[in-house]
Amino acid sequence: MIKALVADTQTHNSRNFQDLDKISDLLSDSANFFWLDLSSPSEEELNMVAKEFNFHHLAMEDVTHRLQRPKIEEYENYFLGIFYSISLKDEFKELVFHELAFFIGANYLVTIHYEPIPELAEAEARWKRNNVQTVKMIGPVVYAMLDTLVDNYFPIMDKMVDYAEELEDDIFQGNGMHTKVTGKLLELKKLFLQMRRIIAPERDILNVLTNRDNRIFGDDALFYFRDVYDHLTRVTDTLDLYRDQIGSTMEANLSVASNDLNSVMRTLTAFSIILMTDALISGIYGMNFENIPELKWSFGYYGALSLMVGITVGLVFYFKRKKWL
Amino acid sequence: MIKALVADTQTHNSRNFQDLDKISDLLSDSANFFWLDLSSPSEEELNMVAKEFNFHHLAMEDVTHRLQRPKIEEYENYFLGIFYSISLKDEFKELVFHELAFFIGANYLVTIHYEPIPELAEAEARWKRNNVQTVKMIGPVVYAMLDTLVDNYFPIMDKMVDYAEELEDDIFQGNGMHTKVTGKLLELKKLFLQMRRIIAPERDILNVLTNRDNRIFGDDALFYFRDVYDHLTRVTDTLDLYRDQIGSTMEANLSVASNDLNSVMRTLTAFSIILMTDALISGIYGMNFENIPELKWSFGYYGALSLMVGITVGLVFYFKRKKWL
Amino acid sequence: MIKALVADTQTHNSRNFQDLDKISDLLSDSANFFWLDLSSPSEEELNMVAKEFNFHHLAMEDVTHRLQRPKIEEYENYFLGIFYSISLKDEFKELVFHELAFFIGANYLVTIHYEPIPELAEAEARWKRNNVQTVKMIGPVVYAMLDTLVDNYFPIMDKMVDYAEELEDDIFQGNGMHTKVTGKLLELKKLFLQMRRIIAPERDILNVLTNRDNRIFGDDALFYFRDVYDHLTRVTDTLDLYRDQIGSTMEANLSVASNDLNSVMRTLTAFSIILMTDALISGIYGMNFENIPELKWSFGYYGALSLMVGITVGLVFYFKRKKWL
Amino acid sequence: MIKALVADTQTHNSRNFQDLDKISDLLSDSANFFWLDLSSPSEEELNMVAKEFNFHHLAMEDVTHRLQRPKIEEYENYFLGIFYSISLKDEFKELVFHELAFFIGANYLVTIHYEPIPELAEAEARWKRNNVQTVKMIGPVVYAMLDTLVDNYFPIMDKMVDYAEELEDDIFQGNGMHTKVTGKLLELKKLFLQMRRIIAPERDILNVLTNRDNRIFGDDALFYFRDVYDHLTRVTDTLDLYRDQIGSTMEANLSVASNDLNSVMRTLTAFSIILMTDALISGIYGMNFENIPELKWSFGYYGALSLMVGITVGLVFYFKRKKWL
Amino acid sequence: MIKALVADTQTHNSRNFQDLDKISDLLSDSANFFWLDLSSPSEEELNMVAKEFNFHHLAMEDVTHRLQRPKIEEYENYFLGIFYSISLKDEFKELVFHELAFFIGANYLVTIHYEPIPELAEAEARWKRNNVQTVKMIGPVVYAMLDTLVDNYFPIMDKMVDYAEELEDDIFQGNGMHTKVTGKLLELKKLFLQMRRIIAPERDILNVLTNRDNRIFGDDALFYFRDVYDHLTRVTDTLDLYRDQIGSTMEANLSVASNDLNSVMRTLTAFSIILMTDALISGIYGMNFENIPELKWSFGYYGALSLMVGITVGLVFYFKRKKWL
Repeated sequence: MIKALVADTQTHNSRNFQDLDKISDLLSDSANFFWLDLSSPSEEELNMVAKEFNFHHLAMEDVTHRLQRPKIEEYENYFLGIFYSISLKDEFKELVFHELAFFIGANYLVTIHYEPIPELAEAEARWKRNNVQTVKMIGPVVYAMLDTLVDNYFPIMDKMVDYAEELEDDIFQGNGMHTKVTGKLLELKKLFLQMRRIIAPERDILNVLTNRDNRIFGDDALFYFRDVYDHLTRVTDTLDLYRDQIGSTMEANLSVASNDLNSVMRTLTAFSIILMTDALISGIYGMNFENIPELKWSFGYYGALSLMVGITVGLVFYFKRKKWL
Repeated sequence: MIKALVADTQTHNSRNFQDLDKISDLLSDSANFFWLDLSSPSEEELNMVAKEFNFHHLAMEDVTHRLQRPKIEEYENYFLGIFYSISLKDEFKELVFHELAFFIGANYLVTIHYEPIPELAEAEARWKRNNVQTVKMIGPVVYAMLDTLVDNYFPIMDKMVDYAEELEDDIFQGNGMHTKVTGKLLELKKLFLQMRRIIAPERDILNVLTNRDNRIFGDDALFYFRDVYDHLTRVTDTLDLYRDQIGSTMEANLSVASNDLNSVMRTLTAFSIILMTDALISGIYGMNFENIPELKWSFGYYGALSLMVGITVGLVFYFKRKKWL
Repeated sequence: MIKALVADTQTHNSRNFQDLDKISDLLSDSANFFWLDLSSPSEEELNMVAKEFNFHHLAMEDVTHRLQRPKIEEYENYFLGIFYSISLKDEFKELVFHELAFFIGANYLVTIHYEPIPELAEAEARWKRNNVQTVKMIGPVVYAMLDTLVDNYFPIMDKMVDYAEELEDDIFQGNGMHTKVTGKLLELKKLFLQMRRIIAPERDILNVLTNRDNRIFGDDALFYFRDVYDHLTRVTDTLDLYRDQIGSTMEANLSVASNDLNSVMRTLTAFSIILMTDALISGIYGMNFENIPELKWSFGYYGALSLMVGITVGLVFYFKRKKWL
Repeated sequence: MIKALVADTQTHNSRNFQDLDKISDLLSDSANFFWLDLSSPSEEELNMVAKEFNFHHLAMEDVTHRLQRPKIEEYENYFLGIFYSISLKDEFKELVFHELAFFIGANYLVTIHYEPIPELAEAEARWKRNNVQTVKMIGPVVYAMLDTLVDNYFPIMDKMVDYAEELEDDIFQGNGMHTKVTGKLLELKKLFLQMRRIIAPERDILNVLTNRDNRIFGDDALFYFRDVYDHLTRVTDTLDLYRDQIGSTMEANLSVASNDLNSVMRTLTAFSIILMTDALISGIYGMNFENIPELKWSFGYYGALSLMVGITVGLVFYFKRKKWL
Repeated sequence: MIKALVADTQTHNSRNFQDLDKISDLLSDSANFFWLDLSSPSEEELNMVAKEFNFHHLAMEDVTHRLQRPKIEEYENYFLGIFYSISLKDEFKELVFHELAFFIGANYLVTIHYEPIPELAEAEARWKRNNVQTVKMIGPVVYAMLDTLVDNYFPIMDKMVDYAEELEDDIFQGNGMHTKVTGKLLELKKLFLQMRRIIAPERDILNVLTNRDNRIFGDDALFYFRDVYDHLTRVTDTLDLYRDQIGSTMEANLSVASNDLNSVMRTLTAFSIILMTDALISGIYGMNFENIPELKWSFGYYGALSLMVGITVGLVFYFKRKKWL
């Protein structure tokens, strides 16, 4: 499905647009501004767009062979960019990445995607709202689009960060759930890595947009793209911080597990010593020697029991003081 | 709340200043020096300042959307900087970061913050004190401000370092508190990471101020900013050293916990062997065979007891020599 | 075995070619395009080719001394490149690397290899198919070859990634197979490292082909090589992600093993305490004191048994609540 | 305390020098060479020197606020450098760093320190010895000083390295001293980090002295400073190697501790099984069934004992073969 | 001992040469090519050579103060290089590094070493063999020397790699040899680090020789040095791969040890529960209650034994299914 917007720089209005095969004619008049949004386009639609805009066939291949890395590539008089919309699925089980390919020319933006990307509607609204002042430049349109996409990274990252801190708290609650927590930490760490893997090259894209002598973007665009760059840097910083922290948490988890083991073993040792000592006494008086004077004492049995109780109390006291119980 | 200071370069006096909407007029005369401090400003105050100084709306957005990274951005004829005042809360539970945004122009400094930042008062005092010699340049004012902020990092860092060394000592005291120490180390490591995450980009800011051909700052400012840069480098160096050391401490903690377990198990093993051997003897003489000659010996019971004592003493001696007890 | 293809730029046909010693004559006419493929060449064949094309003897040594790193080296008027075809053998036990050496000149490509490389056939087919449009440049031929090689990395990498995730799942199934999983993770990690070691310098090769002012390749080749570079970057990104993840998985494995130990020890401790306590009771009533009143009670035996059952039930209940059983 | 040396380039003699307030006069004659050494100077002495040499007040602050990082800073016509003399205290408990600040001008060297630095005496001796050939340049003096300081790093580093290898040997001696060794490794690692933290920026200093177009140093000085740079590189290389190795040693320590535990548990398991089996036999013949035929056999008791011995021998043999004992 | 070779560029012969003090005369005629090899030279020999070739005294000091890092330093019209011959001693206990210092001038090579370096003989042979074609340039001589040295690194590295893989296999053989393997891995890792520490700066040397506008070496030398550089890169790549792999192996070792412990503990737990349960039964029937009906049953004893056997079989079956036995 193709949605075509054209902005008239005289009237400062943007209107929908139908005769797509006249694009190449209208393009030559730099007073016309286009935004073509191709949602799950058919092959003919793609071919037609490629022909009207004269896009390089390698660029078109990049668009159709999805699962690219984020990147920006300069062709003769336009850029091809790949960016991602991210969402979180199934309670931290998976991050979903929706690819957005876009062509930027001097007076057009073409966006192509195979899944619905709600951020585009918002970007369109922002573009229309600011139409008057920004209509003459492609920079603000691209900025609106990228900024909306990047702003949506923050709530996802915040959720992941909250979850990381929750897991961190979990391991200090004890009760032996270390294996589950380990599994969750491992999954979460992979999400952080995956998200970083997408966002780091996106930052490079903004770097290109910011640093390059802009033939396409005006000087003012620099400030805008620097702003998006800044946001991406904040995201990567946070991702790095928590990825590092999850690594430490996994180590801490091991340390806590090891310590739990320690305390289990202390319990075992303390009770073993107590019970075995008591059992030894009962064993001694269970021997069948003919001559065991104690056996004949009338309170011998109670004496033996008292001895056991005494030893038990003494050892319990001793192990309490040693913090083994 | 806005506090406005203006310094007269003729009379070398600085005085408070009220008619904020005349700023743009006074600015054009480069003999006038301004320091505007906006504390928790209302939106109208911000708009008024933006209009008088002609600040870019993206810059103003950065100021109002708090929680930026430290950064410095060059606009046409001024810089926007974001810096942080740091304090430590709740006994190493949390670092608090207070954002300070500042605009630097050829003859003005505008500082904007939403929490009280006590360092500013000190910077103001330093500025007034040195008024005579430094009044003609913006460099010393900025230096006074940044230097005061950075100097306050040292006591915080020192406290964190002391705490790290205290925890390190703790793990070698034994008594099985490894889980608590692990938790504290993990928290502390995060603080080190967070602090580093703020200070590293602040160092980049100073790098920009030091290296750039200064259109705004005089040559002499180079020496001053290099000084602040140096201080920040010392802070990051120390943070890195201790972050690394905390990592090692966590490993050491695991190693010590593992060793504690070792010694617990040795105790268990030694006592198990001793008590089970003694119990075996008592078990043997508790058997009901009709023909067990020892049972009829008059000192058989004492012999058996002596045997147990002998075995116990022997094994204790043996395990002592093996360092298991 | 030598297979020689020559493409006539007039007729746009490529045909096989026999008189190899006339190459040097035909080469001088830049209208002729050659692709010589030497499969397990004899020494004479190599010498002849070296002479006809006038290749440097160090370059020829690099070709014959196999097991080079991937690299590209510029000689006076040609490049020598080393690239690899990768395949997976014996169920993740081993990666097999087949070396492909190639010389690129203004109007020729010479490929030399000692194992069959099926990707070359595909590259040849692609070349012939596009003969008309690309026949005048060496770039597309090289692109076809490199692209085919690199495209074959993806299925191998995908298999390795699937296997890594399978192993990750394995460690959370429990049942004490940690040693086997550890061994497999260690092997797999080495494969990731080996693959990365080959692909990272291959990316450098593409970097050289992309960045260099191309005396040999036309301007358009830039887009093509950038495409291969992109693919290699995606491979290295994924390799890095999973190498990192395998490291975390190994740590997690340790953590899970440690936790399994914990739960084994809890079982041991719980049962030891229960059984030893019961045994102590039986021991007490096995003592031979003359005066143990309980022994004479007619339901004493049942009382003792009930006591044991009671204690067992109580302790099982207690340990269940503590999650030790 | 100030010690002033002046070298007369005509007579090639150096002599002590008293009238410090004439320095500025003498300085203007470039035939005069000064070396001022200020040892724990009073504030007046510092002020006087700052005035005579016209040092920047920030530079003077760096000197008086000790605990700087090593650094070199260029001022208008002189350098300020901070370097360190290192010594080892209390048997590897602590490294002591003595700060040495120095100003280098075209024909003077001013050194300032608050602790005695014995290397300076040696540097002075070397300077006087080479007076004739080197008197006309400041380079050799600075070289003599830095070279002497750096040469003294080697014996300290060698001691630390020996200690590291000693600790490494310790952990393979067994006998359960892992906690102590862990503590020592942790301390030692911190020393390596601290030393590296000082030496890495010192290497940067030499880099500056080597690379910069020397307005102050002659061409020949390049060779000398490159020599010091080389020495520092060797020190950092060794520090890095051993810091890495200590990390591995800590891991190895954990591994060895874990293995010790393994062998303790094998002992426990083997003895538990043996003793419990024997005890079970004695328990069986301690049962009070009326009809246990064995009890009436005349050699039943010896048979039972033999059975126990047989089982014990068999199990010991079995466990020996399994390497559990 | 000094061995002097001089190559006559007219006659294309190289001959031994005696009158060392005429070197400076002959040097001025660039038609003469020298190779002086000083093996464990006396101080006079060194002085004489330094004088004849006019070497800088710092360069000579670098030669005599052995144990330098590999490096190359440019002096006015010659280079000083330090390179290493490596051999393996005592079955992977130690790497031995033999230092080779060399001076390269426009028409001479001076090599100085204090241990015999057999690679030099081979380099000499190669030089003489290629005398005719290479005699006019110093490049091929240096190439022959460096290439021979570097080629000898491969067999050493291969041995180390084989040993690393052997150790890796060892840890999965079980039988509790983890401590020994840990010790060997630790030693081997140090060897990898040491070797890398020597080879990384050697690669930098080749980088210098390759990149620098060669005043001394001809254009063709570039290809030769690039070849050596390539070999060194392969060595460092392999060293890095296996150093990383040894780290993983150490972790795996810990994991395997932890797992062994697990299986030991399962054995202990299973047998403890079985034997204690059996013992409890025997204990119950060993109680002295007057009224225990079973005791009077004529097959009571056999019933009790059967019960024990039944419980044992049942538990063994249960633990087998749980994979604890």
